[in-house]
Amino acid sequence: MFRFRVTHTQGSARRGELTTPHGVVQTPAFMPVGTQGAVKGVTHRDLEGCGAEILLSNTYHLYLRPGDDLIARRGGLHAFIGWSKPILTDSGGYQVFSLRERRTIDEDGARFRSHLDGSAHLLTPEKAADIQAQLGSDIAMMLDECLAYPATEGEARASMERTLRWAQRGRDRFLAIRAGRAPEVRATNPGQAQFGIVQGGAFPALRRESARDTVAIGFDAYAIGGLSVGEPNQLMYDLVAESTPLLPADRPRYLMGTGTPIDLVESVARGIDMFDCVLPTRNARNGQLFTSEGKINIKNAKYAEDDRPLDPACGCYTCRHFSRAYLRHLFAAGEINASTLNTLHNLYFYLDTLRRIRESLTFGTFDSFRDELRVRLGNDA
Amino acid sequence: MFRFRVTHTQGSARRGELTTPHGVVQTPAFMPVGTQGAVKGVTHRDLEGCGAEILLSNTYHLYLRPGDDLIARRGGLHAFIGWSKPILTDSGGYQVFSLRERRTIDEDGARFRSHLDGSAHLLTPEKAADIQAQLGSDIAMMLDECLAYPATEGEARASMERTLRWAQRGRDRFLAIRAGRAPEVRATNPGQAQFGIVQGGAFPALRRESARDTVAIGFDAYAIGGLSVGEPNQLMYDLVAESTPLLPADRPRYLMGTGTPIDLVESVARGIDMFDCVLPTRNARNGQLFTSEGKINIKNAKYAEDDRPLDPACGCYTCRHFSRAYLRHLFAAGEINASTLNTLHNLYFYLDTLRRIRESLTFGTFDSFRDELRVRLGNDA
Repeated sequence: MFRFRVTHTQGSARRGELTTPHGVVQTPAFMPVGTQGAVKGVTHRDLEGCGAEILLSNTYHLYLRPGDDLIARRGGLHAFIGWSKPILTDSGGYQVFSLRERRTIDEDGARFRSHLDGSAHLLTPEKAADIQAQLGSDIAMMLDECLAYPATEGEARASMERTLRWAQRGRDRFLAIRAGRAPEVRATNPGQAQFGIVQGGAFPALRRESARDTVAIGFDAYAIGGLSVGEPNQLMYDLVAESTPLLPADRPRYLMGTGTPIDLVESVARGIDMFDCVLPTRNARNGQLFTSEGKINIKNAKYAEDDRPLDPACGCYTCRHFSRAYLRHLFAAGEINASTLNTLHNLYFYLDTLRRIRESLTFGTFDSFRDELRVRLGNDA
Repeated sequence: MFRFRVTHTQGSARRGELTTPHGVVQTPAFMPVGTQGAVKGVTHRDLEGCGAEILLSNTYHLYLRPGDDLIARRGGLHAFIGWSKPILTDSGGYQVFSLRERRTIDEDGARFRSHLDGSAHLLTPEKAADIQAQLGSDIAMMLDECLAYPATEGEARASMERTLRWAQRGRDRFLAIRAGRAPEVRATNPGQAQFGIVQGGAFPALRRESARDTVAIGFDAYAIGGLSVGEPNQLMYDLVAESTPLLPADRPRYLMGTGTPIDLVESVARGIDMFDCVLPTRNARNGQLFTSEGKINIKNAKYAEDDRPLDPACGCYTCRHFSRAYLRHLFAAGEINASTLNTLHNLYFYLDTLRRIRESLTFGTFDSFRDELRVRLGNDA
């Protein structure tokens, strides 16, 4: 059920097709973030209209509300939320890590208090696998420890080594569920795949060690975690470049939580196939819009009488029908529709950028597309 | 540009076609409320997908933000908001009336302070006509005085008589603009029509007097105002029945601000052709959903594991794709999409009810449709 085929390459960049139990995803792919089983402000049909082929959802949030047991009784996350295409679930590690004063992490896993009701929970590598089996996503992520940036090499090594031990435990549990040796878990997607996660902070040697040892455990594919956490862009690109050659060429490579359009194209150039990021959706709700000529803050008074579309080069619903003046009015008036129209645009912009990347790989013009994007967007986007 | 043709009747109920500069509206019609130039939570294309043929927007809100001058410079409200079908604008009287401690009303008009920045404004019958001419709606409403319920007969008479004087002033100004005698007004829709409004509180004799004298002024068509303000349902139906026979049969009759689905069908039975109401949209955002078997409060815990659609008899996007369990989750999680999906459903339910009313009038089965709706929905909806 889980297959990956590279169809075109240019340097380290690849175009491919990822096959999952719920259909095919063209790579490089961007996964819109639907934290609680919905991309904020956008219906599923509008999401598909923007070109989304795979959705990311969140183990931590869905475990707390409405609960993975409830979702499993509904037949899994696809049935519960009415989305029939592929879904990737992250492990919840990053969200628990972000709770800071409400969590403690030890060898067992992460003990935390719910942000909803203060109830106490323990998220272990095994529990993360159980929850995701019940959610029935097409791709489950192992539980990793997320390291703060900056960290010392000693901290980064200790955390990376713990993540490796968690990787083995998470993989063992995943395989036990798949083999039917965990009947207490209601697995709702027999074709679920599980990705391992490379850590190692900002230290190339640790990144290489983590990649080598995570691959040795044997996951269906691999992600790079712990980046886009505040480090300089060039350092992130270098760390990606350190890691990808050590990850199997016949499996997709997923860079977690990244980034700006420039980050995406630079990471594709270094061998990445999958991305997720809250930037297009969160920025949209804050009035920050990506365009082919750089970023726009729609709150700005200069757009009050601007009858042009957000991005004259864009084919999204928002740009085909509405002016900057109207979008500014909706934002200033606090209308829900500002979030919807802005999110539709930003997601379209991201998904269209990935589509252009894929086309350029087909036609061997990726390098010039990459140069053009840098010129168009500058360094801040 | 403004034509109305009755195509079918059954008792006092009529089916017809209203032609405006931006197209035809099938009547009886329900107008979704897009206060600030957008129906909260629903894009224009989804609104059209629900069957909306005409949108109501709000003079008071648009005058204050972004301003009718700005909208006129954009070419009018249709161009500004990107909606090419008919638009009706209310006069702003009701909104100013609702400001209570922030407004005083005298013979000139309504002096008020903006709810946005406290700035002082004067809304007169002439100013209401000017603003709406600049907005360029297809149907403008005269400024009327909105009476609190309950009121004494003396209060109701004084208010009704002032409204008649305002009617004459508003009509005179509208005709002056149309005749090109108000060059300071940038009229953006030369085919705009203007409706008069019948007042008179809860007193049948005053309602009849108001209807007779408003018609004598000579508007393009007429509305009934000041109902759905707290009076018992049956009293409202009786007051509608007192008014409609006095309004010209060859013009559409618009009952302002009403109401529940039962209110709509009962008012159609008494000769009403047009409606607007915030109930379907506001209730949707609060989790109150209309269905063919009565109202549902989606917050209720009993829907947590309910895999059925909101309304199995409904053909809307929400009911065709999502379960009550998912809608409850979205509402509980505070997701924007709860507002969107709920609003889509409630608007579809209202617009579909009107479509069924029109069909029943075509086939001569309106009375049995009306009986069936009462049995299905009971008295509370």
